[in-house]
Amino acid sequence: MNVKLGIIGFGGMGKWHAQNAPRAGVEIAAVCDIDPVKQQEAVEMGYKMYPSAEELLRDDNVNTVILTVPNYLHKEMCIKAAEAGKHVITEKPAAMNVQELDEMEAACKKAGVFFTSHQNRRWDKDMLIVKKAYDEGLLGNIFTIESKLHSGNGYMHEWHIYKKYGGGMIYDWGVHLIDQILFMMPQAKIKSVYADIKNVLHEEVDDYFKIILKLDNGVTAHIELSTYILEYQPRWLAAGDKGTLVVKNFGCEGNIYRTGKMLEKLPPQITETEAGPTRQFAPVPPGGIVTEPLPTVETDWVNFYRNVVDVLNGKAESLIKISEVRRVLSVMEAAWKSAETNEAILFE
Amino acid sequence: MNVKLGIIGFGGMGKWHAQNAPRAGVEIAAVCDIDPVKQQEAVEMGYKMYPSAEELLRDDNVNTVILTVPNYLHKEMCIKAAEAGKHVITEKPAAMNVQELDEMEAACKKAGVFFTSHQNRRWDKDMLIVKKAYDEGLLGNIFTIESKLHSGNGYMHEWHIYKKYGGGMIYDWGVHLIDQILFMMPQAKIKSVYADIKNVLHEEVDDYFKIILKLDNGVTAHIELSTYILEYQPRWLAAGDKGTLVVKNFGCEGNIYRTGKMLEKLPPQITETEAGPTRQFAPVPPGGIVTEPLPTVETDWVNFYRNVVDVLNGKAESLIKISEVRRVLSVMEAAWKSAETNEAILFE
Repeated sequence: MNVKLGIIGFGGMGKWHAQNAPRAGVEIAAVCDIDPVKQQEAVEMGYKMYPSAEELLRDDNVNTVILTVPNYLHKEMCIKAAEAGKHVITEKPAAMNVQELDEMEAACKKAGVFFTSHQNRRWDKDMLIVKKAYDEGLLGNIFTIESKLHSGNGYMHEWHIYKKYGGGMIYDWGVHLIDQILFMMPQAKIKSVYADIKNVLHEEVDDYFKIILKLDNGVTAHIELSTYILEYQPRWLAAGDKGTLVVKNFGCEGNIYRTGKMLEKLPPQITETEAGPTRQFAPVPPGGIVTEPLPTVETDWVNFYRNVVDVLNGKAESLIKISEVRRVLSVMEAAWKSAETNEAILFE
Repeated sequence: MNVKLGIIGFGGMGKWHAQNAPRAGVEIAAVCDIDPVKQQEAVEMGYKMYPSAEELLRDDNVNTVILTVPNYLHKEMCIKAAEAGKHVITEKPAAMNVQELDEMEAACKKAGVFFTSHQNRRWDKDMLIVKKAYDEGLLGNIFTIESKLHSGNGYMHEWHIYKKYGGGMIYDWGVHLIDQILFMMPQAKIKSVYADIKNVLHEEVDDYFKIILKLDNGVTAHIELSTYILEYQPRWLAAGDKGTLVVKNFGCEGNIYRTGKMLEKLPPQITETEAGPTRQFAPVPPGGIVTEPLPTVETDWVNFYRNVVDVLNGKAESLIKISEVRRVLSVMEAAWKSAETNEAILFE
């Protein structure tokens, strides 16, 4: 079958899918939006346009929908689409919480339609470099992985600044950053979740979070996002007993850092630094730390839609399973609870 | 009175005090060590040398001692010194735990001698820059302060690698890094302590830790140390709703970073980065983030011993109070418990 996609919600991400899904052979069958401005845009761009989701869902030419409406509408739209017999792709977060997701999944199962979520950041090159280092043991036993995303852009936009619409950065990006960690180390169980979540610039919604996952493979994952840390720290830092890896940014600048044998048994000499005497934190001799290039990875986000096409033609399993989406939402719920109580949430 | 110091333990730090305490007018009255090599060194350096602490403590010319023995001996030596009527300065950590400290303090009170701990890193310029920014509100409402200390030196030395002697990095440096945070924000109560503590390269003792203190002033302090993170991250990062401060290293390179008004309401445009579409994490326009120099501070570690001299002459209060030392040890105990149980420890 050809995937004939209906786009429900023609804002920024709706337009993005309209432009990019065809790269996998997906046909944009129709779009809808309740906003007259966006309706007009859709018409001008040559798409078949409906003024409501209900009307789009009655179009027999649409066999699959992508939900690019604000987060709080995902559940309602998903269930309506399933009941109309359409396969459902949601933008992330798939749902506002685990309970909503379970209702959505039940509706899709009942209707016999496919259900997945656009966790597109599983194809991010920066993350895949760290995953490759983990999979191939390039750093030895890894003890810490830091995933950081900092911005100087400060304020969020549109419905993202309202709590009732599912705004805030945990929903917008936390769902990606947690998913990336669990995707990177799928065998690892989560021992505990601890979180610090703040509203720095926004009244209603979080714009800073740190979520710490202690995993049973010896790795502790530190996920941090801020819309207002102005000197951006590296996108990724992973450290093991054989080296440290840094990926600075989306552009994947960075290195692996290693020490020579010379450093393993330094003479126990106290050095006077500008902040007093220290032995352990004295400067490393020149040449003592050497760099290697990062491992190379190939990635293509279009594989998300290619996989959807394959699944709908019985040729592949879904790359984004609802059980995985559910696990991420469970971590998000644990993070909210941790931040509220200041306690760590024991997990799995 | 003149401070006539007996140095108990003539290893690296014993020699360091011998060299540096005189800068505050302190007289080195005697030193002792049980190691014949160090005894010989002391003689060659012209110090009055005793082969045991007991003999040094019988020297009436010594009125004050500094304990530069391995950590597990601090309690025993402190109590012996107090009973001999000597004022006591301990190297840090003052004690192995709160209970030991309480016994030491009781012995000093009973003997009517002064008791303090050499928390010399309260005079570190890098920390004082952050403290000044906090005190003067240079960053607005601060939401995160990161204190990081990374080294490529890997292995520790001598007794620091043995648990029974009080080895490991929480004892060696955690005691400083926690003390600095509490010294920086003395009015703030600690709501919870969460910690991740690991042995990366060492069999018995910790060489990596992350300790998170949620404070009731809105700041969360993240303290991290590793002897084997090879691309050193900034010594300090503090971020508030009016800017971000970075102090890169002991040498105090760094800046304050601020945004202009232009960034406060960016147009809600999705940008295609090398890792897919994003609005919030799109690059900031050139010139959008501006830098200012760090605030300047003057500091002089010699004030530690000058204060000891003043205290012993009734002219000042101690700058390092045992109640503060006790609070730091309490946080260390909470951190150990947190790391062991994976739970956060509610505090104060």
